[in-house]
Amino acid sequence: MKDFFPKPDSPHIRRTSAAWQHPVYTESQMNAITIAHRSARTTSDRVALTLVRILRFGLDLATGYKHDKAVALSKKDPKFANQKYGMSERKYMIRNIFLESVAGVPGMVAGMCRHLRSMRLMRRDNGWMETLLEESYNERMHLLIFLKMAEPGLFMRVMVMAAQGVFFNAFFLGYLMSPKTAHRFVGYLEEEATLTYTREIADMDAGKLPKWVGMRAPDIAIDYYKMEEGKQTMRDVLLHIRADEAKHREVNHTLANLDQNEDPNPFVSTFTNPEKPHPGKGIEHLKPTGWEREDCI
Amino acid sequence: MKDFFPKPDSPHIRRTSAAWQHPVYTESQMNAITIAHRSARTTSDRVALTLVRILRFGLDLATGYKHDKAVALSKKDPKFANQKYGMSERKYMIRNIFLESVAGVPGMVAGMCRHLRSMRLMRRDNGWMETLLEESYNERMHLLIFLKMAEPGLFMRVMVMAAQGVFFNAFFLGYLMSPKTAHRFVGYLEEEATLTYTREIADMDAGKLPKWVGMRAPDIAIDYYKMEEGKQTMRDVLLHIRADEAKHREVNHTLANLDQNEDPNPFVSTFTNPEKPHPGKGIEHLKPTGWEREDCI
Ligand SMILES: [Fe+2]
Ligand SMILES: [Fe+2]
Ligand SMILES: [Fe+2]
Ligand SMILES: [Fe+2]
Repeated sequence: MKDFFPKPDSPHIRRTSAAWQHPVYTESQMNAITIAHRSARTTSDRVALTLVRILRFGLDLATGYKHDKAVALSKKDPKFANQKYGMSERKYMIRNIFLESVAGVPGMVAGMCRHLRSMRLMRRDNGWMETLLEESYNERMHLLIFLKMAEPGLFMRVMVMAAQGVFFNAFFLGYLMSPKTAHRFVGYLEEEATLTYTREIADMDAGKLPKWVGMRAPDIAIDYYKMEEGKQTMRDVLLHIRADEAKHREVNHTLANLDQNEDPNPFVSTFTNPEKPHPGKGIEHLKPTGWEREDCI
Repeated sequence: MKDFFPKPDSPHIRRTSAAWQHPVYTESQMNAITIAHRSARTTSDRVALTLVRILRFGLDLATGYKHDKAVALSKKDPKFANQKYGMSERKYMIRNIFLESVAGVPGMVAGMCRHLRSMRLMRRDNGWMETLLEESYNERMHLLIFLKMAEPGLFMRVMVMAAQGVFFNAFFLGYLMSPKTAHRFVGYLEEEATLTYTREIADMDAGKLPKWVGMRAPDIAIDYYKMEEGKQTMRDVLLHIRADEAKHREVNHTLANLDQNEDPNPFVSTFTNPEKPHPGKGIEHLKPTGWEREDCI
């Protein structure tokens, strides 16, 4: 561990905090996060799901990770399977850094597109922009947290730049063509992200990632998540990040269910019946496969 | 006045509020706003100032507004001068709508560039992004407020779309080339914006804009600015918007004074000596020409 980006030299300034506060998650809420899959119901859904599967296949190929083969082999020869396919702390960290460095793209692109469109067509945005931009901000925080724990090499940095260039433009065009499909695509991506972090936590609990056990969370994570004393370990960081991904999964699956032009953003709205569980900023009533339009609009 | 964008039809949702709260300005703070000009000190400053002057000249030409000629003529023949160059409520409104529809571009582009760069180069953003994105959000709110009072025609809508296309790309390239110059450019633009709204308020007080006198502020403005009972008129709207422009002027002149890579954003920082006036979110210690780097970093 090294200090990859030191504190800036600023005699007048004590600290610079995140202007957008992260909602506080309780431990039981974070433990309740589950992996989930929303079945593809429309052609748009199937396009989105296929794209995510292609990306996943490409990434697994590039990182040499094959979950199905790993499971099959571990039944026959667990030791060899672990040697060949086992994910070490370092392998997971590289995967996390790469994924988080592109994860901040969709929210920014979607927020920007809605902002520009609102001004260009002189229409209300109905509150979508803030949630999308804060999502991209949250993803960038994930990246900065991991970067405090591992510094990527030159090859990785070049890959990240290339990936951003390609993904930014592809997602931008996609969002212009069909914002509904684009949100569904992000919803499916976040299903994968939730799965990855669930596996990391499980591998950690199974003793496969000994270097992470008891490791202290970086200060940037403690500040951002307002982590309590005594709950400031690497495992707590992973629990928070997984919960964020599950939240993005809910948000994007829900937005994909809505009328992109007319519907208000339910995640920043107040409801006629506030007693009934409804979408909100936290994770107390998380719907893994998103809220259906008729339940929230 | 007509309801240009009606409330969406959403039985479950009571209201959708702005996720990013606007700071409350007091009346004495808003009355203290003055026009100001930061003298160009570097080549970068001069480039920025020249660009703003060219844009202003083009806009005045397009809208048939010539302040200097108007002043000269009004000394000789006030009645004819007013006929020829006097700005009516409608002319001001068209100018405001056009300007606000492009005013939301720079903050979004700057925020997006910093976000992408942070992820691409794996560096901290030091808190700049939030302020820039909230600035663009604030500009879009100005537009929506004016749109509640006047609906633009087809010609205007086409002009707005064309202007956004050109300005977005130009500002994006400019920001990639020199963010310092780009922030200075916005600082100078905001000097003009503060001037325009100061003139509108003065013309209103001089009885030249009778239709605006006593006119009630649209609900969207009352909500957004949390305007007090009894202070909810068109004049109060203009006072708030002018104060916002003066704030953007301060923010962008300040950011242009800073090291773009290393310095934290002073507007979201806490200071070692909190007693001393320092940059912040409100307008209590507004510096019209920006904070010098050595006074705030
Ligand atoms: Fe993430
Ligand atoms: Fe995510
Ligand atoms: Fe404005
Ligand atoms: Fe402005």
